[in-house]
Amino acid sequence: MTSTSNLVDPRWLEPPSRPDIDDAASRIRNVLVETPLLENERVNERIGRRLLIKAEGLQRTGSFKARGAWNRLSLLDADEVGRGIVALSSGNHGHAVAWAAYRLGLKPVVILMPLGSPNAKVEHIKDWGAEVVFFDRYVADRAALMRHWTLERGFVAISAYDDRRIIAGAATLAREALQQTDGLGVTPDALLAGCAGGGLVAGCALALEGRTNDTSVWGVEPEDYDDTARSLAIGRRVANGKATGSVCDALLAPIPGELTFSINARLLAGVRAVADEFALKAMKMLFKNFGLVVEPGGALALGALLADPSYLREKTVVVVTSGSNVDEGLYATALGDASEKG
Amino acid sequence: MTSTSNLVDPRWLEPPSRPDIDDAASRIRNVLVETPLLENERVNERIGRRLLIKAEGLQRTGSFKARGAWNRLSLLDADEVGRGIVALSSGNHGHAVAWAAYRLGLKPVVILMPLGSPNAKVEHIKDWGAEVVFFDRYVADRAALMRHWTLERGFVAISAYDDRRIIAGAATLAREALQQTDGLGVTPDALLAGCAGGGLVAGCALALEGRTNDTSVWGVEPEDYDDTARSLAIGRRVANGKATGSVCDALLAPIPGELTFSINARLLAGVRAVADEFALKAMKMLFKNFGLVVEPGGALALGALLADPSYLREKTVVVVTSGSNVDEGLYATALGDASEKG
Repeated sequence: MTSTSNLVDPRWLEPPSRPDIDDAASRIRNVLVETPLLENERVNERIGRRLLIKAEGLQRTGSFKARGAWNRLSLLDADEVGRGIVALSSGNHGHAVAWAAYRLGLKPVVILMPLGSPNAKVEHIKDWGAEVVFFDRYVADRAALMRHWTLERGFVAISAYDDRRIIAGAATLAREALQQTDGLGVTPDALLAGCAGGGLVAGCALALEGRTNDTSVWGVEPEDYDDTARSLAIGRRVANGKATGSVCDALLAPIPGELTFSINARLLAGVRAVADEFALKAMKMLFKNFGLVVEPGGALALGALLADPSYLREKTVVVVTSGSNVDEGLYATALGDASEKG
Repeated sequence: MTSTSNLVDPRWLEPPSRPDIDDAASRIRNVLVETPLLENERVNERIGRRLLIKAEGLQRTGSFKARGAWNRLSLLDADEVGRGIVALSSGNHGHAVAWAAYRLGLKPVVILMPLGSPNAKVEHIKDWGAEVVFFDRYVADRAALMRHWTLERGFVAISAYDDRRIIAGAATLAREALQQTDGLGVTPDALLAGCAGGGLVAGCALALEGRTNDTSVWGVEPEDYDDTARSLAIGRRVANGKATGSVCDALLAPIPGELTFSINARLLAGVRAVADEFALKAMKMLFKNFGLVVEPGGALALGALLADPSYLREKTVVVVTSGSNVDEGLYATALGDASEKG
């Protein structure tokens, strides 16, 4: 959620190579989940596309973040072991880091989270033995917080996206999806995923580059949190004007990452901004037709198809449902209020 | 839900062979979903077993029934094509038959369902173009209903479980799970699944027979609907005393199947009866920790572990969450009421 590049060896601020991605895929095999690609012909007819849901909310820790966190913590340098781990996160990255550290026997772990984060995310992080330190997203100096934990306390910072090892992990998702579409004998026209710091779409775009020229990669942002769209439009990183207000808590990073933006500026087909109501409608559709619990930020990419029937019309679209960590109350509300027939 | 053996060629009332199961596995590849096996170390610690969730609610049509229905309808005899399809079902089998018929271009399809079936199941069945004919589960003569549709109307009856082609389909679930546990380098001590007509556990037990002697197969029934447990105890099929009253609508078949009972009597390690409240607790645990929507009947097998901490203690247990078709209101209730920490 903030750049920590001033603390990071510059070699980690290059895009991951194909061997980096292949190595990450080997590293996660039989530890992480090969999440299924789900389809429903009636839903396809209803929405006017061939929809292939990459059900990544089933991943370890309930989000794609486990791919990067596992890869990153499996690659700790010798001088990083035993120093403690710190990560800044709206929840899913912190959850993934806390779990990976637990599995690898690394401690202590501190997760810096904005006040008001979903209980589900806070509880899971604590459950893996990590300490949660809250900050006020309006007034906290995130870079200063990270400097405290890294420079003064000696912890190793695990960036949520501005790190080639993290992006290589995220890239394994699209690599896997492409193997699955190969199994179905189809090449997707597009892959859509939520975009906050931009690591997931950056990794996916890198994984597809050179493997297929026929699949465009799109990011999806909440309305009013379209920092990546606006940054791409003017060719440099600009911040969101708001810090809270969308139900998509996982997609509220203040500004695109440096490394991720450089990748996304080169490779993304575009970024769509979508209203929260379509995230909730998508959640209900995923409940009714796919048996999937998906959190709002994880459902917004599907929401982009529901919001604009002309967008990618008649195309074969892989939609990443990227997370499933949602409080019961909000989930019940989505099932009740999203009145659209799923 | 009723025996149709008087209408069925006796060759289909033999247990499926290993080649039958292998053929079924080939037939479903790239049409059905290879559902993932999910794990959470903290849940394992909390419940005192290594729990491997076979997430079959993600299957096409939201239940394991798609395996048997697809296999069966792919194997229609020449004289069966074009005659229409009829099935008696509490919902999931009918949903699976309606979808498979849609995919294979077979019609018309009639699904005979008890009044009071969940809306989610009725709507899905209609959505695939099938006609739903309701009956009163207290007074209807199910065998007479089936005779009407088959003998008078000429439809082909698709049994929910008393058919080797259906059981071969169900068996692919355990075959797949065993390949997945092989990948993890572990042999499960037990496999648990819900039991109504008994086709799922029968198929699973057949799939494991001869592949491993180390994995016991258990059925799980709702309290007061323990017809299979009581039938096994006395060595012949006896009916349930009640027809409604459990929230596990998928597990209320009136009496064990003939073919399935003969298999289960030989191969099951046992059958547990579990109270509804543990199905609801399991649903909440699956929501919080695995991102899975599971219906009550699909969650009851996990409920068996929650209900009795000493049962299969310290063992590695594959639990099949066999379906995800649940109405929103009941689901929200399960999330709210099941107060146990997931």
